[in-house]
Amino acid sequence: MTEKIKKIKQWLEKNDSRLAYITDPTNIFYLTGFKCNPHERFLGLFVFPEDEPFIVCPELEVGQARAAFAGKVIGYRDDQDPWAAVGKALDKKKQNGEKIAIEPSTLPYKNAVILSDLYESPAFISIEGLLSSMRSVKSRAELDAMKKAGEIADYAVQIGVNAIKKGRTERAIIAEIEYELAKHGYSEMAFDTMVLTGENSAAPHGYPGTRQIKEGDFVLFDLGVVVNGYCSDITRTVCYKHATDDQIKIYNTCLQANRAAIQVVRKGLRIGDLDGTARKVISEAGYGHYFTHRLGHGLGLGEHEAPSMSADNDKTLTTGMVFTIEPGIYVPDLGGVRIEDDIYLSEDGPVTLTHYSKDLQIIQ
Amino acid sequence: MTEKIKKIKQWLEKNDSRLAYITDPTNIFYLTGFKCNPHERFLGLFVFPEDEPFIVCPELEVGQARAAFAGKVIGYRDDQDPWAAVGKALDKKKQNGEKIAIEPSTLPYKNAVILSDLYESPAFISIEGLLSSMRSVKSRAELDAMKKAGEIADYAVQIGVNAIKKGRTERAIIAEIEYELAKHGYSEMAFDTMVLTGENSAAPHGYPGTRQIKEGDFVLFDLGVVVNGYCSDITRTVCYKHATDDQIKIYNTCLQANRAAIQVVRKGLRIGDLDGTARKVISEAGYGHYFTHRLGHGLGLGEHEAPSMSADNDKTLTTGMVFTIEPGIYVPDLGGVRIEDDIYLSEDGPVTLTHYSKDLQIIQ
Repeated sequence: MTEKIKKIKQWLEKNDSRLAYITDPTNIFYLTGFKCNPHERFLGLFVFPEDEPFIVCPELEVGQARAAFAGKVIGYRDDQDPWAAVGKALDKKKQNGEKIAIEPSTLPYKNAVILSDLYESPAFISIEGLLSSMRSVKSRAELDAMKKAGEIADYAVQIGVNAIKKGRTERAIIAEIEYELAKHGYSEMAFDTMVLTGENSAAPHGYPGTRQIKEGDFVLFDLGVVVNGYCSDITRTVCYKHATDDQIKIYNTCLQANRAAIQVVRKGLRIGDLDGTARKVISEAGYGHYFTHRLGHGLGLGEHEAPSMSADNDKTLTTGMVFTIEPGIYVPDLGGVRIEDDIYLSEDGPVTLTHYSKDLQIIQ
Repeated sequence: MTEKIKKIKQWLEKNDSRLAYITDPTNIFYLTGFKCNPHERFLGLFVFPEDEPFIVCPELEVGQARAAFAGKVIGYRDDQDPWAAVGKALDKKKQNGEKIAIEPSTLPYKNAVILSDLYESPAFISIEGLLSSMRSVKSRAELDAMKKAGEIADYAVQIGVNAIKKGRTERAIIAEIEYELAKHGYSEMAFDTMVLTGENSAAPHGYPGTRQIKEGDFVLFDLGVVVNGYCSDITRTVCYKHATDDQIKIYNTCLQANRAAIQVVRKGLRIGDLDGTARKVISEAGYGHYFTHRLGHGLGLGEHEAPSMSADNDKTLTTGMVFTIEPGIYVPDLGGVRIEDDIYLSEDGPVTLTHYSKDLQIIQ
């Protein structure tokens, strides 16, 4: 049994719960090494304080589950009800009205209702706090994967910058980036690669399209790759051919906010105050209402995970965390700048995992 | 107000429900045209039998929501509680203990609990049947997008077949396919493109890697593209250099199953019997236990949607449906074959949207 499953068992014991029912595929991968995207099919990991854990998954994933996971694996076919298999496997263990640990943010309501029927009105408690705090502190092996993912993200930005050419579309640049990466064996992106140009860059979550690069554009790259399951996430913004004074001011304000936040990262810092440090720089420059999102988010197996680097987060930074720092300034019609790094909080302070230059570049 | 929202209102009226709370991003896109991947953030569409519907979404998506949706759009910042905004917007409308329509398969348990508190123990009913039956019958515009998506999928398979070369890895072929597509402006894939070779092809949901193509391999392509939000999904399997008698028999059995199923597609057919038609061909050839999944699935905005083409589905085929027919035979260590088409059920019978040749090809 892995150390991680052992921690779940201990937590169950301590919380007087006799079952953890885990369904989030990323949490299941984290705990067992079994990688599975079940789509709309049923996938569940069942952990007990004493008994051996088991997985219920689609028949066509059973081989991969057994290769990764030492516990019992129960498959079901598409014409079988997975809950019948679950019910049978739980039958001798369950006691009505028990306390069951679930992931309330992702567990579909339907499955909670079925479980309620099986256990006749159990009490549900959340195990999300434990899982996200386990995942937020990275081991050496996890950090190594994330360092590598950061390096490849740097390289990907370089490919993108090299691909900038008058008249090229956002999508064409994305194609260049992903093709070059794939040729080097890095084919899994952490999320849809974003290249936004000109006024499109003012939408923090815009959709890249067929807009062609023009002189004077901001060109914003937001991308990440996956190494051994772990994500990187970098944003860089450059100018094409020339930049106005306004653009330079926006860029340098954003960069100053990024640097100010990285500088104050330390163990025990209230996370909301980290957001505040960057926000203050941007507000004082007069762009406060153009910084429309939180400062960043935790990073790991998930592209977005705990902690949320937002103003209202009263939790504190812990050694071993990896998170993004990504202030942005989005001025409608003009364009937007975001500068994002991945930060690992080591015993000795912040270590930046993304290294692509942050000085303002005007691409010729 | 769109026709689709009108249908929701009428259904609410008929079902004596005073609120539909819709959270699935694809359903929201289908109903409103607002495309949003909120990640872990809150997104909700609220529809009432009489009042105007509204959307609650992250502040940074408000612009795109307003561009698509004529109703009210309420944004919240990352440091604000979206449920406070929801509560305020619902305040004058809500009555305790009401009947609320939800999507039980995707609504997170946590949100159901918050809603239960807001409405003091409402009764929940499912609106999923209505939404999936609306989505399963395609309009002319939807069909046109899916025809185009099918054509591009055909082209993508051709690119992949052309890229087969001794020693090439699965990932390198995927890179070729996606790069060529992107150069032609088709950069959105419906799901992770799959190229599986040799023994890897025996895992129906395998993960492509660095295995190099060898003589005598099956090479299986499973891919799809997105056009105006609508997916295609094609699978073709070819042999490299030569094929054994066993491989030829497996291939032709799978092809016969694919053709037999397409041939019986007609309005009113029990869906489980469609699966049975293909399964019978494969079972009679002695490969029954190597066909480990359902025959197919509905297709549209979702890569997998209703109806599920599985043996236990008692529903019947309706004019306007688009679904896949994808029998497969997976022999451990030897390899697997799957042949998948997208089928539209027209007034005049089945129309195949994927056209890449299905005759056994031995690539030299």
